[in-house]
Amino acid sequence: MTGVNIAKKLSMFSEPWSPKIISEYNGNEVMLAKFEGEFVWHSHPDTDDFFFVIEGDVTIEMPDETVVLGPGEMYVVPKGVEHKPSTKNGASVLLIEPKGTPNSGDEKTAATKVRI
Amino acid sequence: MTGVNIAKKLSMFSEPWSPKIISEYNGNEVMLAKFEGEFVWHSHPDTDDFFFVIEGDVTIEMPDETVVLGPGEMYVVPKGVEHKPSTKNGASVLLIEPKGTPNSGDEKTAATKVRI
Repeated sequence: MTGVNIAKKLSMFSEPWSPKIISEYNGNEVMLAKFEGEFVWHSHPDTDDFFFVIEGDVTIEMPDETVVLGPGEMYVVPKGVEHKPSTKNGASVLLIEPKGTPNSGDEKTAATKVRI
Repeated sequence: MTGVNIAKKLSMFSEPWSPKIISEYNGNEVMLAKFEGEFVWHSHPDTDDFFFVIEGDVTIEMPDETVVLGPGEMYVVPKGVEHKPSTKNGASVLLIEPKGTPNSGDEKTAATKVRI
């Protein structure tokens, strides 16, 4: 039996800012997402937000600092901290959030997450 | 500000089966570990066990199946399932477990986890 192959999963979708569920861990969804351009400013009042960059570049703007990530780099946005993810040239990112967390911080604008 | 660079963190230690904490996410420790040879059969009665292979090969034997992972592959061992991690040629692995989880499943034989 094999595990979850990240590259294979990434080849299965292209739409940006639409996380796909690839596994679960203790009630959290492990997801892959593609980033293009800019996402919205948002926060998650009840959870930290885990970013691991598989390929490309990711910038996470926050009120007090900006974090720039490349492949093989990770960052956890603390619970409740406003942040705006963006990318200059595109990125593929592994995300972890508790099941049901709206990716935009708002149920009304959140992407529907499907498992691939 | 930069995030956590996995390669840089991996260059800071060499001892196998001794996870180093590199970040935290909602009360979980995000860790890096190096694998050499075989670890012990064990289980975690209260938590799933998250493995993401950064480099090398990892085999996870379980009572009903064996999972073989390469770089860029991940697997979550379900809570309570006995498992024995091993590697043929060595591996570097990103692990996630709730804070304080003994890596061997037993406080008496667990590695002391330090943050790097």
